[in-house]
Amino acid sequence: MAQKPSIPKGTRDFSPLEVAKRQYIISVIKKHFERSGFQPIETPSFENSETLMGKYGEEGDRLIFKILNSGDFLAKTKEEFLQTKNSLKITPQISEKALRYDLTVPFARFVVQHQNELEFPFKRYQIQPVWRADRPQKGRFREFYQCDADVVGSTSLWQEVELVQLYDAVFSDLKVEGVTIKINNRKILSGIAEVIGASDKLIDFTVALDKLDKIGEDGVKTEMLAKGISEEAIDKVQVLFNFSGSLSDKLQQLRELLATSEEGTKGIEELTFICETVEELGLKSAQLNLDVTLARGLNYYTGAIFEVAAPETVKLGSIGGGGRYDDLTGIFGLKNMSGVGISFGLDRIYLVIEELNLFPETVSNASDILFFNYGNTEAKYALKAIQKLRETGIKAELYPDKVKMDKQFKYADKKGIKYAVIVGETEMQQNIFGLKNLHSGEQQNVTLQELMSKFL
Amino acid sequence: MAQKPSIPKGTRDFSPLEVAKRQYIISVIKKHFERSGFQPIETPSFENSETLMGKYGEEGDRLIFKILNSGDFLAKTKEEFLQTKNSLKITPQISEKALRYDLTVPFARFVVQHQNELEFPFKRYQIQPVWRADRPQKGRFREFYQCDADVVGSTSLWQEVELVQLYDAVFSDLKVEGVTIKINNRKILSGIAEVIGASDKLIDFTVALDKLDKIGEDGVKTEMLAKGISEEAIDKVQVLFNFSGSLSDKLQQLRELLATSEEGTKGIEELTFICETVEELGLKSAQLNLDVTLARGLNYYTGAIFEVAAPETVKLGSIGGGGRYDDLTGIFGLKNMSGVGISFGLDRIYLVIEELNLFPETVSNASDILFFNYGNTEAKYALKAIQKLRETGIKAELYPDKVKMDKQFKYADKKGIKYAVIVGETEMQQNIFGLKNLHSGEQQNVTLQELMSKFL
Repeated sequence: MAQKPSIPKGTRDFSPLEVAKRQYIISVIKKHFERSGFQPIETPSFENSETLMGKYGEEGDRLIFKILNSGDFLAKTKEEFLQTKNSLKITPQISEKALRYDLTVPFARFVVQHQNELEFPFKRYQIQPVWRADRPQKGRFREFYQCDADVVGSTSLWQEVELVQLYDAVFSDLKVEGVTIKINNRKILSGIAEVIGASDKLIDFTVALDKLDKIGEDGVKTEMLAKGISEEAIDKVQVLFNFSGSLSDKLQQLRELLATSEEGTKGIEELTFICETVEELGLKSAQLNLDVTLARGLNYYTGAIFEVAAPETVKLGSIGGGGRYDDLTGIFGLKNMSGVGISFGLDRIYLVIEELNLFPETVSNASDILFFNYGNTEAKYALKAIQKLRETGIKAELYPDKVKMDKQFKYADKKGIKYAVIVGETEMQQNIFGLKNLHSGEQQNVTLQELMSKFL
Repeated sequence: MAQKPSIPKGTRDFSPLEVAKRQYIISVIKKHFERSGFQPIETPSFENSETLMGKYGEEGDRLIFKILNSGDFLAKTKEEFLQTKNSLKITPQISEKALRYDLTVPFARFVVQHQNELEFPFKRYQIQPVWRADRPQKGRFREFYQCDADVVGSTSLWQEVELVQLYDAVFSDLKVEGVTIKINNRKILSGIAEVIGASDKLIDFTVALDKLDKIGEDGVKTEMLAKGISEEAIDKVQVLFNFSGSLSDKLQQLRELLATSEEGTKGIEELTFICETVEELGLKSAQLNLDVTLARGLNYYTGAIFEVAAPETVKLGSIGGGGRYDDLTGIFGLKNMSGVGISFGLDRIYLVIEELNLFPETVSNASDILFFNYGNTEAKYALKAIQKLRETGIKAELYPDKVKMDKQFKYADKKGIKYAVIVGETEMQQNIFGLKNLHSGEQQNVTLQELMSKFL
């Protein structure tokens, strides 16, 4: 019995047009990565489990896809765990490899493993799929691409400046205007917690502050009080609840607020350098916006934190993010390697471009010309011309069978091919080609030379 | 304790230069796929196990990487299989998904699943990784890319003609000359078995004949006798042991040999059409060679069989293969869909090009120019110029830190960057740039405009 074919939930097949659209986005990102001096590396789809496990928290460990050992994998398992059906304990005994969960941990592993071959600072980009056993939902998949650019081995803030420019260059090139690059700094968040005497409650404070958009000032304050942050402390940072104005206004407000915090002041210095330099150099179409509620994986970042918001007309939230982490490779034993990087959310960017109707009309991988098939003699004449066309870079194909013209027309139409070439006895005798515009229906006789120049 | 980082055996990390070289090969293959009217699709990395299992034989099933179910996967397993540690029986109970083993079965699944959206004949190409739990050895990996182009839904032999041309176009473009495209036909092999009265021993006969190169005429005959093929039968096909001459000579010999076999005669007709048409249209640098010992996955193919041999100076064997299969999609319930396709062996082609020293010198993703960093004022001046350079497509980067010149030089050298730009106070005052050729050591002062035009 034949099965009814299907694919695992959370995964996708991509049609030629979808591949073309995705490739278009990827090619723009890649182009700007390379223009900014990033070079591609690739790492294996699966890693040794110990490389991945314990790096993403308990929830992350759960969402990592594990690969079953080959052969008689039960042979060496512990009776006890089998008898009690202890899946958690059995897992490491029957699975040594796992699909990568992101590109950052494999990159850290790569840097440490190849440290003697690399020249630091090392600027790499990586555009590869990752896998997560997450509950699939709109815009969230179990297999999806990440597009990351990172630099390790330098603490220079010029990189933050360039990464902001890189976001701006990519989104401007994609014609996605009105993007907001939000920036914050871990040190500023730490500084705020410090001045209100709640350094031990940094996470609680930040999580609550991050909800300002959704639950409003009163909601945030209630949550902070519930978490044990005093009313007095909250009063001290009142300015954050109505944080607005120009970049320099905001920086000035923070400077006053955090005057007593060394770390906070350092954070403001960093942000000031980044923001002022970016402002002076100018952005094409993106807005840089200091957002003190931005926290993104707070445990991870140590300096600048970035997040890119889609244009306001599209309700999609974040389409990119990143930041600086002081000890990327420490988990693999290589200390003092500061890193900074950004990521592009391919699937979300796809949705934005689709919704705003910004895919160029030329995005396609369809042939330029279809030669109709009128029989073997004509096909051979056609194929001689097709060879010449292909040599000059034109995408040309011959309909493989001599079937009714309707069918050949329909084929061209469905594939999005805009021109057909008709070659019968007359054309062969005169050494010409009937070129038909399948949209307008217009037809003209042309020489091979004319045919070529039409598409070059 | 930090782990010493490593990757699973049979997998690879790719450095920037390796990625650049692989991308170069892939881009040439892709270019010619598209010029020939093939369009890309992509399928998920893992499929439902039932889609893959049972499609590659028992050995294949064993080599498929299975993914462990998420969560409490032991909960619903049978006590009996756990107690007896029966890995084989437990596998389907704890694993529902598996990494793809090739691109052909997922393609067949794709065609059946999307048959109502597709226009036939459907010409697709697919360049994606596949995974096999095979014993790793030189040139054989557990994760590797396949590059396949197939057409389903037409029996036209024009496709075989075009696929031969496609092989020729790709290898010529890669400057790999002296490639031999071997061609055979399943129907000819069946015809031979028929005329010697050994149709039931087709596989044995073919397997033995395939060893002609290695064990010689006597060895093959001994093996055939051992398999129960009569001496009389072997005498009848004596011509095959010294099969040589031009294509038309060979076809004529086969025509005589297989005169009484309807299927054999059909095979010769097919081959004659393909070979004569290819000959008439001409090949750029490849040789087409009729090889009756060629069998490649005999159970699979029903018509033409292809294999591409590397140039003789490189001892590497096959760098591509393919053929026609009459019922590709039958396993998923869609009957009568003839398919024909070819595949390129990326890893082997890489080795050939490396060995013959054929990678173009320009294959690189390194920056065109490195701006040295002399401090923040100079860096800002530099970054203004870098922005302009990048906008015109030049790959330019700023060394992020103000460190000793030695270190910045070494960085450029190690990354393969050929030009450095030196900007100090003098240059800023005069609004110029010191451009240094890092190979020759030559240095000159240029304006921004001159700098740009040098790299465009």
